[in-house]
Amino acid sequence: MTAIALDAMGGDDAPAATVRGAIEAAREGIEVALVGERSVLEAELARSGGTPPGVRIEQASDVIEMGEHAAIEARRRRDSSIYVGLSLVRRGEADAFVSAGNTGAVFATALVVLGRLRGIERPALGALLPVPAGPTLLLDAGANAECRPSHLVQFAHLGSAYMATVVGVPNPRVGLLNIGEEPTKGTPVLIETHEELAKSDLRFVGNVEGRDVFRGAVDVVVADGFTGNVMLKLAEGLIEMIFTEMRSVASSSLRTRLGGALLRPALREMSTRLDYRKYGAAPLLGVEGPVFVAHGRSDAGTIANAIRTAAGAVERGMIAALAAVPTERLGSRD
Amino acid sequence: MTAIALDAMGGDDAPAATVRGAIEAAREGIEVALVGERSVLEAELARSGGTPPGVRIEQASDVIEMGEHAAIEARRRRDSSIYVGLSLVRRGEADAFVSAGNTGAVFATALVVLGRLRGIERPALGALLPVPAGPTLLLDAGANAECRPSHLVQFAHLGSAYMATVVGVPNPRVGLLNIGEEPTKGTPVLIETHEELAKSDLRFVGNVEGRDVFRGAVDVVVADGFTGNVMLKLAEGLIEMIFTEMRSVASSSLRTRLGGALLRPALREMSTRLDYRKYGAAPLLGVEGPVFVAHGRSDAGTIANAIRTAAGAVERGMIAALAAVPTERLGSRD
Repeated sequence: MTAIALDAMGGDDAPAATVRGAIEAAREGIEVALVGERSVLEAELARSGGTPPGVRIEQASDVIEMGEHAAIEARRRRDSSIYVGLSLVRRGEADAFVSAGNTGAVFATALVVLGRLRGIERPALGALLPVPAGPTLLLDAGANAECRPSHLVQFAHLGSAYMATVVGVPNPRVGLLNIGEEPTKGTPVLIETHEELAKSDLRFVGNVEGRDVFRGAVDVVVADGFTGNVMLKLAEGLIEMIFTEMRSVASSSLRTRLGGALLRPALREMSTRLDYRKYGAAPLLGVEGPVFVAHGRSDAGTIANAIRTAAGAVERGMIAALAAVPTERLGSRD
Repeated sequence: MTAIALDAMGGDDAPAATVRGAIEAAREGIEVALVGERSVLEAELARSGGTPPGVRIEQASDVIEMGEHAAIEARRRRDSSIYVGLSLVRRGEADAFVSAGNTGAVFATALVVLGRLRGIERPALGALLPVPAGPTLLLDAGANAECRPSHLVQFAHLGSAYMATVVGVPNPRVGLLNIGEEPTKGTPVLIETHEELAKSDLRFVGNVEGRDVFRGAVDVVVADGFTGNVMLKLAEGLIEMIFTEMRSVASSSLRTRLGGALLRPALREMSTRLDYRKYGAAPLLGVEGPVFVAHGRSDAGTIANAIRTAAGAVERGMIAALAAVPTERLGSRD
């Protein structure tokens, strides 16, 4: 049975959301280790009707707060729920780690506790974008603000292997986020990356622009963590803005209120499809173990989704697939 | 009377869209010089009912195509509609130049024909984003892929002066696009830029993230041209995707078709508000004359809007306002 270590203290609504999400996932046969302060978690479990089969607590007395920016310090805090949870994976006592907590702290601690896959210089955060034509993986979504061409080439390999193995997209199309289609567009780093990707055995379709991404032009979008993070947050803010505007438009007159009422179920379904919480969690790609970061604002349902996503990735052999990329193709200096 | 030089050969639908847009603007009392091949423009004017008062033709025998990437070469083509149009502004025979043609060519040619404002190292392309709380100026929207801190500080001054004078936003709030609110976030270039802006006399509100922009957190968003361009095209693609999805949702059943019919006028109005064509054109900020670039897919109405935007900017003293920023505040090496 697949066992997931869950950072029970991570996220805006922890531990209520994490404990309830764990209970939901455990009902489907996934084992969950709730990592955090035992007394707090026992109280929360009691409030939720007791500890169900498949759920256990792993004690961790320290919590790294969302607002803490000292990711480098965080990785030394061996009693934190993040450190303890990742150590369970390291020791084989859990198959994957899920956290809705401080992403920078998860990233820095995973590097120390699990280490990097061979040939990977910088692990990246992958985010699945809700593209109507099919989920599209954006990486790096924010872990590395500045990247060298070799980092971006490694992201392309990691993303391609993840989409093929975990999401089940055969032979994924890989695009390089740029400001024009021509190979000579963009910064010197992007021009060199384009050359390297064109020589690779990946299904590289060339540069893609912001507008192509939501048209489903590719399965994997490669970008540095700065651009990827700006993109992700812009998309989130823009989708939110449009739905807010739509609600306001639909309540502006009797006619539109009636129209809105008739359309509501369909629009709600559409809004769910475009919700970043749909996929539950973003994989940290390039570390020696499955690690997933959920949105800080995750509710219980999103946490349960994150646990399902992590369990599915384990069952499909995520790490073996990522580790199977021959090192010489990664252009690593390691 | 304000006179606008219009690149009559620029844009996907030129010269039909440009000639009709010029006629529409001329009806409101704006003089328009159509710059392009006389015989072609005369034929187009004849098809549109003849040459109305206020519209004249300025001969230019060469056209720079949308697909031409040799912006550096373009600036030497002295018979192109872009070169001739900008020269009219240079000689005082027109007050501003508008083009829906090749942005790179307009940019490179404007640098040669008009030159830069004192203290400005790199002019930037400003794009007004359709934020519900009020138009927000993003710059650089794509002219300079890589920027130094001094460039970004100059963009902040140019953008602030433009919003105050032309758009009429008193004391505009300026934000630096970044991946976190803290001054120490992002690349070394952004950290230094944050320091400089914090010391400036601008109303600098600090770093802003992608999601803040569409919430109306600032009036001016400063970014390098790479990030700005990615952002602009992503927003365009995402808005288009959501409206396409909405149309498909609204036609999925009898109930939703009825709801859609009732909501249609309100949604159409909303879609117009979110349309990038609303503002007609993006200013090129930092050159010695008002230059506006319209979207390549502009129709006649968008061209007319672009001409109105340019005429309004002239009447509000755009260049005098931009040139009034004291050079010592610009941190220029010039």
